[in-house]
Amino acid sequence: MEPWRLTATEAAALIREEKLTVEAYAKSLLSRIEQRDPAVQAWAYLDPEAVLKRARELDAVPKDQRGPLHGIPIGVKDVIYTKDMPTQHNSKIYEDDAPKVDAGSVQILRHAGALIFGKTTTTEFAASTVGPKTRNPHDPGRTPGGSSSGSGAAVGDFQVPIALGTQTGGSVIRPGSFNGVYAMKPTWGAITREGQKIYSVSLDTLGFYARSIADLQLLASVFAVKDDEEPPAAPFAVRGAKFAMVKTMIWPQAGPGTAAAMQRAAELLREASAEVEEVELPGEFDELPKWHRCMLTCDGRAAFLPEHRTARDKLDNTLAGHVENVQKYSRADQLAACDGIAALRPKIDEFARGYAAVVTPSVPDEAPLGTGSTGSAAFNSIWTALHVPVVNVPGFKGASGMPVGVSLVAPRFRDQHLLAVCQEVGKIFEGQGGWTRPVW
Amino acid sequence: MEPWRLTATEAAALIREEKLTVEAYAKSLLSRIEQRDPAVQAWAYLDPEAVLKRARELDAVPKDQRGPLHGIPIGVKDVIYTKDMPTQHNSKIYEDDAPKVDAGSVQILRHAGALIFGKTTTTEFAASTVGPKTRNPHDPGRTPGGSSSGSGAAVGDFQVPIALGTQTGGSVIRPGSFNGVYAMKPTWGAITREGQKIYSVSLDTLGFYARSIADLQLLASVFAVKDDEEPPAAPFAVRGAKFAMVKTMIWPQAGPGTAAAMQRAAELLREASAEVEEVELPGEFDELPKWHRCMLTCDGRAAFLPEHRTARDKLDNTLAGHVENVQKYSRADQLAACDGIAALRPKIDEFARGYAAVVTPSVPDEAPLGTGSTGSAAFNSIWTALHVPVVNVPGFKGASGMPVGVSLVAPRFRDQHLLAVCQEVGKIFEGQGGWTRPVW
Repeated sequence: MEPWRLTATEAAALIREEKLTVEAYAKSLLSRIEQRDPAVQAWAYLDPEAVLKRARELDAVPKDQRGPLHGIPIGVKDVIYTKDMPTQHNSKIYEDDAPKVDAGSVQILRHAGALIFGKTTTTEFAASTVGPKTRNPHDPGRTPGGSSSGSGAAVGDFQVPIALGTQTGGSVIRPGSFNGVYAMKPTWGAITREGQKIYSVSLDTLGFYARSIADLQLLASVFAVKDDEEPPAAPFAVRGAKFAMVKTMIWPQAGPGTAAAMQRAAELLREASAEVEEVELPGEFDELPKWHRCMLTCDGRAAFLPEHRTARDKLDNTLAGHVENVQKYSRADQLAACDGIAALRPKIDEFARGYAAVVTPSVPDEAPLGTGSTGSAAFNSIWTALHVPVVNVPGFKGASGMPVGVSLVAPRFRDQHLLAVCQEVGKIFEGQGGWTRPVW
Repeated sequence: MEPWRLTATEAAALIREEKLTVEAYAKSLLSRIEQRDPAVQAWAYLDPEAVLKRARELDAVPKDQRGPLHGIPIGVKDVIYTKDMPTQHNSKIYEDDAPKVDAGSVQILRHAGALIFGKTTTTEFAASTVGPKTRNPHDPGRTPGGSSSGSGAAVGDFQVPIALGTQTGGSVIRPGSFNGVYAMKPTWGAITREGQKIYSVSLDTLGFYARSIADLQLLASVFAVKDDEEPPAAPFAVRGAKFAMVKTMIWPQAGPGTAAAMQRAAELLREASAEVEEVELPGEFDELPKWHRCMLTCDGRAAFLPEHRTARDKLDNTLAGHVENVQKYSRADQLAACDGIAALRPKIDEFARGYAAVVTPSVPDEAPLGTGSTGSAAFNSIWTALHVPVVNVPGFKGASGMPVGVSLVAPRFRDQHLLAVCQEVGKIFEGQGGWTRPVW
């Protein structure tokens, strides 16, 4: 098998067993990129020579000094600082900007032995919905989603096994669904956001892409994401477990692809002898979408003031509008949103603790046609606001055969539990959901 | 008068009227620093030649292109990135580190015409209480407080008119009191924290030092800190206003200096025909100090993981302990703290809305002897956790004649209101409180 087909976990094992060198692995991915990236355009920055040089350095590291991600290539969304590559935020203000600093997450990855492969595309500051150049690997006429466009597309296209994204609305989960990969938004605050461009300090969360749950588990472990409970020795048993299907107040926006995915997900879980309850969120959650939008906008008002002052003409109009408060949010509105959301967080935890996981839509439907807009975050925003961990599990398909995922959600700081559940649920959805990841 | 004695507002007026050049002002401050800094040691980085070069550039800027802080020197705490100076966090890990990036706050300051003078000392990552080399300008045998040690000392010593600090526990307000200057911690989230080293993402707040309220107002305006209410045209009237004296659950830690300051503050307000109520916070606030400590520690667990992984031996032991969770906080503890504090925020707003301001201690007492420890943040942590704006107003003195301030507190996003109140209250406390700022 060509190395570029490997998951991170598989590649790490082969490197450990000296059946694969980091250089050979990197070369294989670079050839895949050379072949595929003219169509997909997932990268904001990629220097093949630098990648190969670093790969050879990693091959020279003594075996007893190697970390858990030794030699594993990872794409880094271009709103996260890397000291040896530019960080441009898809902003004209930061063209070719290259501060010599690593984000906290990148420091941790490098220390674990990861091969920082390049910078993946993003919408402007991970904050607008205007698509970058990137195209969906499964249909170049469609968006890969955003704002973590390049990370989702690169992992979905086998250009790297894993990648970093960020989510403030739906920027990790949406590209996960559109590109047919696993995507995780961990509990807010579980991982440092140092060196990751700020949009909303109350919402922004680092996230991961992979083509297997084992790879997400590997990343969560490297980032020391821990529940209170020790991870169980045995795999999670779907049989007898109880799941909540929560369509949410956003359901009227669900298209046929998502409606079918949710229905098929419930059927498959029931066929696997799980208990599945259709549950509505209590009415007090109804304000969440409005509150999320207010919080985002008001946090953006402070976040983009520097760029607004220094280069208003080069700033996306929507983001400039946050600074100018064109939506006329008062401070009272801002505090009502902030305090209202905060009061719901322990309530969603308590609700979700009653289930193995909450199953809820990842997207309105398969990736829409066109690359101008990265699509809607409506189904994601509420969970982002609640700070709970979310995993997109692929396996279903829309009317055009494009991938559609569903989200599994757990209480805050039950990230490892959620991954254990998704490990088994993913096998079912990927196996019987109807969509199989193509290799183009 | 020597220019170094000027406040920022006074200097800005003279520069505007072409009665003072930026270069002459900078030279005056540099001579003051040359004379005084061997005793005070407020600077982590200062390049006089670079300062003078930049001053001359500012003098050459056409008058119609000048901002509100044109030519005003400002000290920047060394946990805030500056693209033309090192940022070292008082950490062995970052010795001579100089990423080419400006913090959001520094971008805004530069755009307003400020002269970024140098980097002021901090405790390690603004997170430990181990003092840097800096000494209190009013007694070199005493601490200037921390973690914004250099900023508080430099402003108190007339080495710069204004400076930036940061507060996670009491790191802005404590040095304000110990050095006898005005210090402001604005509402959390009102100003971008981009490019400011993270300790607790839920608590860290940028703050300011100055020797007048007018200077704090100038800074708040540059940073677009806005209340819902328009600022009143007339000065705030102390006569007839109602103040709450809140000693808090920390009061048993108050020494004679703070006990006398609080009593004198109440007397002076009453003499000025204000209504003064001694009020106790409701019992539900009792958990705040415990919750703040838990939140800080758990946020630090994520924040310092990169340094812990890459250079554990160079990291302060207490901070390493956060990562290692030596205090054995569970995720349940962390969430109880986070949600408990969040629920109290609207309650303190409602309480504080009943008064012109809440008057509360800034510190246990005057600056303690010794520079090994920067003192206690016990009186500040609760307000930091509540995200409310706080201003230290100087004017009182302790048993050794050292300055003692008191804090004035308002509801979230009533920063401009609070400054207007402090403008008038400050005149009274500075005029009749018993401590007059000496010039050494």
